[in-house]
Amino acid sequence: MTYCVGMMMDRGLVLMSDTRTNSGVDNISVFRKMFSWHVPGERIITLMTAGNLATTQTVISQLEERMKEPDERQNTLFKSSTMFQVATEIGRLLRETVGERQEANNTRSKFTASIIVAGQIKGMEPRLFMVYPEGNFIEASPDTPFFQIGETKYGRPIILRGYDRSMSLEDAVKLTMVSFDSTLKANLSVGLPLDVMVIARDGFEPLFERRIMADDPYFQAISSSWGEALKTAFHSLPDYSFSAKYRA
Amino acid sequence: MTYCVGMMMDRGLVLMSDTRTNSGVDNISVFRKMFSWHVPGERIITLMTAGNLATTQTVISQLEERMKEPDERQNTLFKSSTMFQVATEIGRLLRETVGERQEANNTRSKFTASIIVAGQIKGMEPRLFMVYPEGNFIEASPDTPFFQIGETKYGRPIILRGYDRSMSLEDAVKLTMVSFDSTLKANLSVGLPLDVMVIARDGFEPLFERRIMADDPYFQAISSSWGEALKTAFHSLPDYSFSAKYRA
Repeated sequence: MTYCVGMMMDRGLVLMSDTRTNSGVDNISVFRKMFSWHVPGERIITLMTAGNLATTQTVISQLEERMKEPDERQNTLFKSSTMFQVATEIGRLLRETVGERQEANNTRSKFTASIIVAGQIKGMEPRLFMVYPEGNFIEASPDTPFFQIGETKYGRPIILRGYDRSMSLEDAVKLTMVSFDSTLKANLSVGLPLDVMVIARDGFEPLFERRIMADDPYFQAISSSWGEALKTAFHSLPDYSFSAKYRA
Repeated sequence: MTYCVGMMMDRGLVLMSDTRTNSGVDNISVFRKMFSWHVPGERIITLMTAGNLATTQTVISQLEERMKEPDERQNTLFKSSTMFQVATEIGRLLRETVGERQEANNTRSKFTASIIVAGQIKGMEPRLFMVYPEGNFIEASPDTPFFQIGETKYGRPIILRGYDRSMSLEDAVKLTMVSFDSTLKANLSVGLPLDVMVIARDGFEPLFERRIMADDPYFQAISSSWGEALKTAFHSLPDYSFSAKYRA
């Protein structure tokens, strides 16, 4: 499994992914699911992947191969003039990769994957997309300003309650850490280390990029104090009484 | 979909279920998923059901039919001498019902359901079981003192963090309400009203039984104040800093 979150904030984009892949519960590995490229002062593009690992690695490898040939016309990440074109081309690559595997194996359900595409190109707004295995995609908006892929449910309530697009980028990282902590506690197939990428609006390079290891003191502090903080929150709510006379 | 929680507490059993059933998103109904029977001073048995509605209604109807014939030898709920026998017989009924439908329709994946069985018979401990569609079941223990069926994920982190078997039964109801609130906010197919049943140890009748409607003032208070309480909890955690110097 996987858990990735991408959030659109007033001040930029905050992205976090886990690194655990598994085939069953007895075949667990660490693989990077976050990939980022930038041209200082001009563009920054970050992807996060969930789903079949062979599929997502193929997509990423194709994107990287194109970058190594400077005259390649289809250099999606560096030559596309808008983030919309980037998402379109990644969708095309993803659909092709999934389709080839499905056709070769005469199956429809396997080999699928999803990709969160985030970034900004100079002169335009930061943008955040979720690309489906069918190659189509949706874009974050003020109504739905964050995307999750993989094991999305355990970590969703705290984001629904805590997200505020005007919050600082540091607070947004803190919020995603709490969301990851809830997920890690409930699903063994989501695991540390975590990759974090923070893209400040008009920065065109990573403002903050970090691999959070299991011994990270901040993540440990969040993980150990969130339980207590939740209990305090719980006790701050009005108490229930079995008497029928309760009025809030 | 469905969401039901059954919790084993030092002081008894706390059970809560939603009442929404759906076939697609455009065919939504209210059906009771919690069923309870008791013989004052002697036994109390409560079931909660998730899964195919025709299956669970058939199981419940069979249990009720047997009770209407006072000489029925197989009066599972009133004549079984232990909760283990009750769970065994419910498992048998469930497996038979699922099996008949699957056989008649030549399919394996449909018509399944799960049932939480809770109760106490005089002279014995309160017990809590989860019965699978295959007819087998597991029992709650100090290590795993609660069961969820249906849409379990959104509401799980708060129970993992907030559950304490020594808490009051009122606090246990409050905790399940917070868990339901998180689930209702995230999944349209789980819906109000909610049914609550509280079984005090050695009570042998409902200590508290209530249908929580959408206009319930306490549930509204929990729902509206939990968001603020979570934000306060979030801000009580140490702040993150992009400086590498952080030490917890």
